[in-house]
Amino acid sequence: MNVAVLGSGVVGRTLSAKLEDCGHKVVVGTRDVDSLLARTERAMGGRLPPFSEWYAQNSAVGLGTFAEAAKHGDIVINATSGAATLDVLTAAGRANLGGKVLVDISNPLDYSGGMLSLFVSNTESLAERIQKSFPEANVVKTLNTMNAGVMVDPKSVAGGDHHVFVSGNDADAKARVVDLLRNDFGWTNVIDLGDITTARGPEMLLILWVQLRTTFGTAAFNFKIAR
Amino acid sequence: MNVAVLGSGVVGRTLSAKLEDCGHKVVVGTRDVDSLLARTERAMGGRLPPFSEWYAQNSAVGLGTFAEAAKHGDIVINATSGAATLDVLTAAGRANLGGKVLVDISNPLDYSGGMLSLFVSNTESLAERIQKSFPEANVVKTLNTMNAGVMVDPKSVAGGDHHVFVSGNDADAKARVVDLLRNDFGWTNVIDLGDITTARGPEMLLILWVQLRTTFGTAAFNFKIAR
Repeated sequence: MNVAVLGSGVVGRTLSAKLEDCGHKVVVGTRDVDSLLARTERAMGGRLPPFSEWYAQNSAVGLGTFAEAAKHGDIVINATSGAATLDVLTAAGRANLGGKVLVDISNPLDYSGGMLSLFVSNTESLAERIQKSFPEANVVKTLNTMNAGVMVDPKSVAGGDHHVFVSGNDADAKARVVDLLRNDFGWTNVIDLGDITTARGPEMLLILWVQLRTTFGTAAFNFKIAR
Repeated sequence: MNVAVLGSGVVGRTLSAKLEDCGHKVVVGTRDVDSLLARTERAMGGRLPPFSEWYAQNSAVGLGTFAEAAKHGDIVINATSGAATLDVLTAAGRANLGGKVLVDISNPLDYSGGMLSLFVSNTESLAERIQKSFPEANVVKTLNTMNAGVMVDPKSVAGGDHHVFVSGNDADAKARVVDLLRNDFGWTNVIDLGDITTARGPEMLLILWVQLRTTFGTAAFNFKIAR
């Protein structure tokens, strides 16, 4: 399958490498390819190597503009920051998203205040805003409630005994995403919450997620619904 | 220990009966005792018997006004609806809350829109609002992320293998609440998130909780943090 991964940060890299390993043809989308490859500084307080370094070790992955990547993908994954998402999708191009499955794993994080908050929440979600802005795409919200490493290797935490949520209006699009979660990433516990408005719950969960990461001092955890 | 339980709904009743069983002296607080006892209609779509019926079977529990109950309690538990909370605490009386542990288990649920939302969230929590309004009380947020039955009998779900959160500014008050959770209710997994501002996460979790109750068709579940 042809997959576009919009975003070259830790989430985009982790998903791209895993999807390529699973036999998909992946193109990472970025704003400016030359500028991305020219960067030499590390990011995330030194923890993230420059993209070029990662790219040298993952040369099977393609690289293009947001529009080139989106055009390539049968499935388009939004792995950009929440704040950049609508601009990035606009750059990807409405025509390149039409009829596609648009997997939104971003979070509307707002670091501008003294404490982390969400720039959209409670009465709307970022996923709904994306779906309204790009009605020709089939938006599926998923994977936003955990660390990138857990997304692609659920068994790395508690043997995989925890949950991932999906929300979306289109049943076929959700089914394709659930297949990818199960078959490619190894998820055994997927909860379909309902239409795209149900993305509010998983997005609002991020505040607790960040608190827990602070409390534990690690991101190697996930939410399980015990029954 | 003397405990006040403000609120005579399903949560107040469940907590009162359990605390009395554990040997505490409980007084349920309500706005108007005579009016509460005179009610004959069932609530919650017929699922909740009139208070008088419950009270006849739980006669060891005391009953008084919000102020009488709060005066009685060494610990005061707010088991009213989020929307009523500040009015109820005002009726309970500032002097009766001074120096007390005020356990807030309410949720700022707003059913006025088409979809459930929170009337305070993201940049503030109801627990913070309570602490600001009643600085003489030591507010501890806990137990708001689950059904009443699970609060007092965590082993009824997955053998107790799931979590409860506590948030509050006063370490001694939190320690007393954690003791109550462990020794009286049987909680083995308590996560201290930090000061009262960390109540935002567990309150924002309610949107997902309600979605899950709809998805599962039962409230017999809880959140576990898998590690």
